[in-house]
Amino acid sequence: MFEKGYVDENYIRVPKDRLFSFIVRVLTKLGVPEEDAKIVADNLVMADLRGVESHGVQRLKRYVDGIISGGVNLHPKIRVIREGPSYALIDGDEGLGQVVGYRSMKLAIKKAKDTGIGIVIARNSNHYGIAGYYALMAAEEGMIGISMTNSRPLVAPTGGIERILGTNPIALAAPTKDKPFLLDMATSVVPIGKLEVYRRKGKDIPEGWAINREGNITTKVEEVFNGGALLPLGGFGELLGGHKGYGLSLMVDILSGILSGGTWSKYVKNTSEKGSNVCHFFMVIDIEHFIPLEEFKEKISQMIEEIKSSRKHPEFERIWIHGEKGFLTMETRLKLGIPIYRKVLEELNEIAKRVGVEGL
Amino acid sequence: MFEKGYVDENYIRVPKDRLFSFIVRVLTKLGVPEEDAKIVADNLVMADLRGVESHGVQRLKRYVDGIISGGVNLHPKIRVIREGPSYALIDGDEGLGQVVGYRSMKLAIKKAKDTGIGIVIARNSNHYGIAGYYALMAAEEGMIGISMTNSRPLVAPTGGIERILGTNPIALAAPTKDKPFLLDMATSVVPIGKLEVYRRKGKDIPEGWAINREGNITTKVEEVFNGGALLPLGGFGELLGGHKGYGLSLMVDILSGILSGGTWSKYVKNTSEKGSNVCHFFMVIDIEHFIPLEEFKEKISQMIEEIKSSRKHPEFERIWIHGEKGFLTMETRLKLGIPIYRKVLEELNEIAKRVGVEGL
Repeated sequence: MFEKGYVDENYIRVPKDRLFSFIVRVLTKLGVPEEDAKIVADNLVMADLRGVESHGVQRLKRYVDGIISGGVNLHPKIRVIREGPSYALIDGDEGLGQVVGYRSMKLAIKKAKDTGIGIVIARNSNHYGIAGYYALMAAEEGMIGISMTNSRPLVAPTGGIERILGTNPIALAAPTKDKPFLLDMATSVVPIGKLEVYRRKGKDIPEGWAINREGNITTKVEEVFNGGALLPLGGFGELLGGHKGYGLSLMVDILSGILSGGTWSKYVKNTSEKGSNVCHFFMVIDIEHFIPLEEFKEKISQMIEEIKSSRKHPEFERIWIHGEKGFLTMETRLKLGIPIYRKVLEELNEIAKRVGVEGL
Repeated sequence: MFEKGYVDENYIRVPKDRLFSFIVRVLTKLGVPEEDAKIVADNLVMADLRGVESHGVQRLKRYVDGIISGGVNLHPKIRVIREGPSYALIDGDEGLGQVVGYRSMKLAIKKAKDTGIGIVIARNSNHYGIAGYYALMAAEEGMIGISMTNSRPLVAPTGGIERILGTNPIALAAPTKDKPFLLDMATSVVPIGKLEVYRRKGKDIPEGWAINREGNITTKVEEVFNGGALLPLGGFGELLGGHKGYGLSLMVDILSGILSGGTWSKYVKNTSEKGSNVCHFFMVIDIEHFIPLEEFKEKISQMIEEIKSSRKHPEFERIWIHGEKGFLTMETRLKLGIPIYRKVLEELNEIAKRVGVEGL
């Protein structure tokens, strides 16, 4: 069975429902309305199911910190500031990112159903978890979904050495005859979560992921956390296209932070801080307004099939399509449970104790 | 003065108007309506002005070949197949890509003006020149413009060695207080035009741009043209994010080729072939529907200023913003003329002779 993510033996497996209830228990105890707590839980569990641990239950601590410190508004007045039949601008009122994201995407889907297109952008939000979650919401309705968000500064622009850009992910999901196509990518070479994994394991990072505080490529993960920065997709300089990842990161900032009247990544803060002002961009296209959904599925599935069966490099086991590894991992984890590192388990049970609810 | 592109002495400088008239002269003689010829000329001259020679007048030969071979329809019935207030699906009837692109973008701009959003996708078109041309049309109207196109297969997917993906560019332009922001990037590490330059100069290409027919990284440009392939942005394998460039390429194919009921890059042909079926995606967002245009310009210009003045790496002269080099090159070339390689000049004059018009 396919298993993306955990590879050593320091974990236990937890059924997804148990993890879901645990997250809801913690959040509701902290005063999050049950409906909202369920949205956050679904988002975190989905990340864990798909093998994106950095955005799974591991992240609960940060949200809990944000709630306790007052950085997150538990009863936000999420309101539509401007609206047309095919678009809306939302103010998230510093609510949980998942709640703002979910409601915004729901609205975008509704608008797309009615008019073919739905674009909803949100400002004054918080960290919203995996970008792909929202894109998939649209794909499940037979639509193309796009989701982007700006994020706190971790990436240096081409030629620069300061952390001023976000890892600003872009996700696109589209329905196929089988599981949806799902591209979900940071616009940096790697997301910060990957470095955290290397740090935990005490391993050097590959050359080309990040720079140190002098701006030079480093393999020492501590140098990156200590004043260094991630590199944009395409790497150092322009030779291999680093300016492209840098540009994609700005594209996300323009469509989410600037267009919403919010802010750009340099000024985005952690969830635990007041006014973190994360901004999101959601877009839905209803396929049926363009061509019959069945024709679309036929065409995209044929494309995927032809790519997967094209001649492969001898060193590679197979050619993957975007989202495929995540769905396979999900199958495994739905059967066997979600692997939770013992260290993470301890942390979660500490949260439970602190909040006063039953542990995981 | 800043000059991107030509660096040696084998060129002459031609004023842009002379180049424009030459292109119009050639195309109208071949039967292209004058209005359409002017659209193509403007597009090619713009590429040359901005230093993107691979998409400038050099490309005229391919269009002329396409017209003479019957691969291009000179009197296309460009028609709207499906339409709503915020979107349209266009059939380009095998017309010149620039003409289909220009009309589609005009329509997207109109829809955005009326409704906030305009998405227009086109199928059955041809090579449309630089993607950024269309994005800039929107920025000039105070809107955000996005332009994408699929293209003939030149890129191998991650793990694969066959040319089945296009270099599928993505462009985004946005107005600022100064010149527009303009990201215009192939989703491969480099566009094929860059390799053509190295080939012409008989130079090896940098490691990481392309693979040979066995799928291994090569620096020999002839190996790439002889059965090799370009690498997606992020390079070989997944280590530095090659799967991301591969995914962005598919994003473009999904939004242009699949959603339009056209085809994806594997089946896109050269302009000289009948039914090349290039597909484009255009999107315009009218900023004023979200926030006041002046506020947007203020915010984006401040972002750009802060990035440009952030701490730079000692090896880099400065931090560039997307589009900046092109605008500086344009300034130089508007003053001094557009540099045309003598070899290209000869080729252009041969075209003139063949068609029966005055040379450049």
